[in-house]
Amino acid sequence: MLLPCGDDSAQSAAMTSNSREIFALILAGGSGTRFWPASRRLRPKQLLPLGPSAPLSLIRSTAERLSGLVAKERIMIATGEHLLAATQTELALPPGAYLAEPRARNTAPCIAWAARIVAREHPDAVMVVLPSDQHAQDAEEFRRILSVAADAASEGTITTIGIVPTRPEIGYGYIKRAARHREGVYRVAGFVEKPDRATAQRYVESGEYFWNAGIFVFRARDMVEKIDTHLPEMKPLLDAIDQHAGTAGEIEKVREFFDRCESVSIDYGVMEKTSDLFVVPGDFGWSDLGSWESAWELSPKDAQGNASSSSRASSNGDVFISAKNNLVERLGSAAENKKMIALVGVEDLCVIETDDALLVIPRSRSQEVRQVVEELQRLSRTDLL
Amino acid sequence: MLLPCGDDSAQSAAMTSNSREIFALILAGGSGTRFWPASRRLRPKQLLPLGPSAPLSLIRSTAERLSGLVAKERIMIATGEHLLAATQTELALPPGAYLAEPRARNTAPCIAWAARIVAREHPDAVMVVLPSDQHAQDAEEFRRILSVAADAASEGTITTIGIVPTRPEIGYGYIKRAARHREGVYRVAGFVEKPDRATAQRYVESGEYFWNAGIFVFRARDMVEKIDTHLPEMKPLLDAIDQHAGTAGEIEKVREFFDRCESVSIDYGVMEKTSDLFVVPGDFGWSDLGSWESAWELSPKDAQGNASSSSRASSNGDVFISAKNNLVERLGSAAENKKMIALVGVEDLCVIETDDALLVIPRSRSQEVRQVVEELQRLSRTDLL
Repeated sequence: MLLPCGDDSAQSAAMTSNSREIFALILAGGSGTRFWPASRRLRPKQLLPLGPSAPLSLIRSTAERLSGLVAKERIMIATGEHLLAATQTELALPPGAYLAEPRARNTAPCIAWAARIVAREHPDAVMVVLPSDQHAQDAEEFRRILSVAADAASEGTITTIGIVPTRPEIGYGYIKRAARHREGVYRVAGFVEKPDRATAQRYVESGEYFWNAGIFVFRARDMVEKIDTHLPEMKPLLDAIDQHAGTAGEIEKVREFFDRCESVSIDYGVMEKTSDLFVVPGDFGWSDLGSWESAWELSPKDAQGNASSSSRASSNGDVFISAKNNLVERLGSAAENKKMIALVGVEDLCVIETDDALLVIPRSRSQEVRQVVEELQRLSRTDLL
Repeated sequence: MLLPCGDDSAQSAAMTSNSREIFALILAGGSGTRFWPASRRLRPKQLLPLGPSAPLSLIRSTAERLSGLVAKERIMIATGEHLLAATQTELALPPGAYLAEPRARNTAPCIAWAARIVAREHPDAVMVVLPSDQHAQDAEEFRRILSVAADAASEGTITTIGIVPTRPEIGYGYIKRAARHREGVYRVAGFVEKPDRATAQRYVESGEYFWNAGIFVFRARDMVEKIDTHLPEMKPLLDAIDQHAGTAGEIEKVREFFDRCESVSIDYGVMEKTSDLFVVPGDFGWSDLGSWESAWELSPKDAQGNASSSSRASSNGDVFISAKNNLVERLGSAAENKKMIALVGVEDLCVIETDDALLVIPRSRSQEVRQVVEELQRLSRTDLL
């Protein structure tokens, strides 16, 4: 495994163990806009203790959720070079666990790179690729579903997890299932783009559509083969990395790969071009925690529907008077300062405090946080980005 | 003058000058509840830079507004012992200027005490008594009205300023005028309690009623006489202070006076019992700055009606997106920290930040801040009171 940042002893140990054990690749990039002011370029969403993850960060929760299914030494983290230090601090995995992407190239290049790394010694090993910033309420069911998917993937078919939809969400892509392969495993009929409301309603009612959560399971060599087939321009660059693996030249070859390869998602680059896929429907209280609104939805609340980080983390209770269904969050130093927050006569608001910024926004408009980030970019307020 | 806190050289100098010069007594008590979290027991409203007063405190603005009418060495400040240090820091008047009340006894006792002090050497001097925490947009007109009142008072009749009402306010007491005495001066028909809405409307339309702003003008000896007449139980206690004036025993006599005297307002104790009063109607953009709502009303605003302390005091501009008619205030250390505040999609809110607390409340409910203070008292959160 490439080591821009340390020795590879732990990874080498993993490489020599049973190749049927499962590897995990946790995708931990992210631009840090939807959870501003908590999220920043150098502190994106997965590094935050959002919603039910608190006091752990989302990425830490994600790693711990794999416990019992994936050995700690087989967890890999793909992240940006600029996030490497913060991510290492958060997870304390062996240095060899981190794949530092020299530049952001969407998901296909780093999955291709990771698949090559695993395939060198464990071509038949099953890999789970999953985002670092999602929530699964029922961790045991989550692992059971992944295990079903791992069994399916070990037959040689790339397998995706399909989240059983609970509402006609128009913000996600859907996966349509085809015939049943065996208990809990279906063939994939196709991937479909974000639908309109009516279509989404039809999808939910049909029972044949699932949310695409970006969780994929496959044997290392199957993904290597798919990448070579569908993204052939990557092949010589990845071959060069393999040829220099473990040498001083490896880092340079990785950099060349990321400099030259196309920026493309695994969905677009591989999945949608592959006719032979499985989907394993999963229902484990999944959430992508897409906004402050969903952080509120998943947070514990008082009888008036107010969720407050102080009620979880400190004795410095906030005061709510005639206030309902609000989210109060403090992150970073602000969480330690424990400034008391009093909400009087307000409803459905998010009040988010960090050490250098404060955001007040209606829960229903929490997607509009992006506009603040855009405004800060316009104002060149890099200190707040 | 009593000196719990320094020498009396400046005051002595004032005492020897022309007795027709005007003295001012600025009443600076206050419990600090309506502007929580900015106002606290030890930092009541008059010490805050609210509304148009910023960056000066209200008491500093009040003192400076008298400039040209009242010589600086003739300004007296009545405040609580617990507020003495902060008030001295704010005003930097000679130590003898401060009358430290050993305990809060409403307005009549401290006015009685101040009138006795002035009357010892300047019985015919005119005194202006005024609150420390009000705003007057037109300072020149304010001084002109006080000057008219001082002329009236020098005839020997206690004179009050009546604010020309601009709305049917139900939160104030009113003064009804009787016959005109001379240009700009009327006899008082009576004081009336806070009216209901319909009555207030009638008052405003009549042109015969004015708001009682608690601004009174009188000759020192006339107030001494009124107090002796209407609050006779105070007389021996005040006589004792006079007898010990300038001696080591003075402080003790003042303490006895405040320990034993009744807690009573000058309105109830003297004005309402006095048939012979003048009122001088004044229209100088007065406000009592009674709540965060009125702080917003008086603050400069952007095109969307947002008032932000940062736009006045720093370059760390707040961001307003689809946000209208909000008030953003930072006070104390928070003002120096210049945390950036972003409001998105909210209207008519007050967002008030201090170093240890944050309040979010609709402008229209800003009177309910008291409920937060009550809750904090219930919780024994003396650190926030």
